[in-house]
Amino acid sequence: MTHIMPHIALPDGMPGIRGAMAFRPETAKPLNELVEVLLCGPHSLTPGERELIATYVSSLNDCHYCRSIHGAIAAAHLNGDEDLVKRVKADFQHAAISDKLKALLIVAAKVQKGGKNVTAEDIAHARGKGATDLEIHDTVLIAAAFCMYNRYVDGLGTTQPHDEALYRERGKKVAREGYISVSKTYLPAEAAAH
Amino acid sequence: MTHIMPHIALPDGMPGIRGAMAFRPETAKPLNELVEVLLCGPHSLTPGERELIATYVSSLNDCHYCRSIHGAIAAAHLNGDEDLVKRVKADFQHAAISDKLKALLIVAAKVQKGGKNVTAEDIAHARGKGATDLEIHDTVLIAAAFCMYNRYVDGLGTTQPHDEALYRERGKKVAREGYISVSKTYLPAEAAAH
Repeated sequence: MTHIMPHIALPDGMPGIRGAMAFRPETAKPLNELVEVLLCGPHSLTPGERELIATYVSSLNDCHYCRSIHGAIAAAHLNGDEDLVKRVKADFQHAAISDKLKALLIVAAKVQKGGKNVTAEDIAHARGKGATDLEIHDTVLIAAAFCMYNRYVDGLGTTQPHDEALYRERGKKVAREGYISVSKTYLPAEAAAH
Repeated sequence: MTHIMPHIALPDGMPGIRGAMAFRPETAKPLNELVEVLLCGPHSLTPGERELIATYVSSLNDCHYCRSIHGAIAAAHLNGDEDLVKRVKADFQHAAISDKLKALLIVAAKVQKGGKNVTAEDIAHARGKGATDLEIHDTVLIAAAFCMYNRYVDGLGTTQPHDEALYRERGKKVAREGYISVSKTYLPAEAAAH
């Protein structure tokens, strides 16, 4: 731990992004809506696959809170397979995921370093494995968005517990209810009513 | 130019993030709402100051489209002072901006590299120059958000014109009308009606 207090006065008892969102509900609304569309909305990639992309990028950015909670949400979507989540973080090329998802994770890793790293060859490779334009778009945006969420969580010095059980429980709840629903205690009334 | 076509089939005639947003209105909605709250909402930092933070981070991320359009929006808010915008991008410590904004730009630059780079000393320095918790929060989130927008724009290989007059005209329009209003041709009806 490089510090023991958040950089600004965030509400107690709400770790990671939750405290930051409760501090500023006006920005929490679009932040929750974005992640809800990207990770929970109707899609040709499963919620588990999309959470794996989010988890992998958060791992590359070394954001403990985000990689833990999204890893737990991914596992909840993948029949509790926490080993698969760990394998994707450590060495996705040898994980039991589709070749298409592997190709999309290559794109996500390039975006994490900076958007210009994505090459026409990376995109052609993903298309060769069956990726659609929408899947490529959403992979780029999920990777880009987690470069934001990770920086937001770490840049404010939020508290980030190291208790795996806490993430596991919260992960099941988010997987079941979605992001907007679990945030409704602090979102503006209009957003919570969605 | 490392490529001449976007990586996916984006609509013609809409450069930068505009084509990407038109391709996926469901994510364009929260992306526009986030930037509207952060850069146009009621605030103790002026719209010009907040656009300067966005421009500076986009410049650090070397995103031509974002640094050009946000630089133009900043200039429009700052009585057309394009020289000030250029000085902030090149060497903000010697630009005619407040000491508080300089201290916030130091925080923004740390966030751009990764959230963990922000230190208690950076925050104490900003507070010493008069920055409030909300201003620190929003600086961190603006910097983090532009690490997303920049990666989104570059990661999809969007077209990014090099015609300054185009950015100048668009910048005036966005400064006058805001982000949601200028995006209403492709946003879902609910968002455009806000």
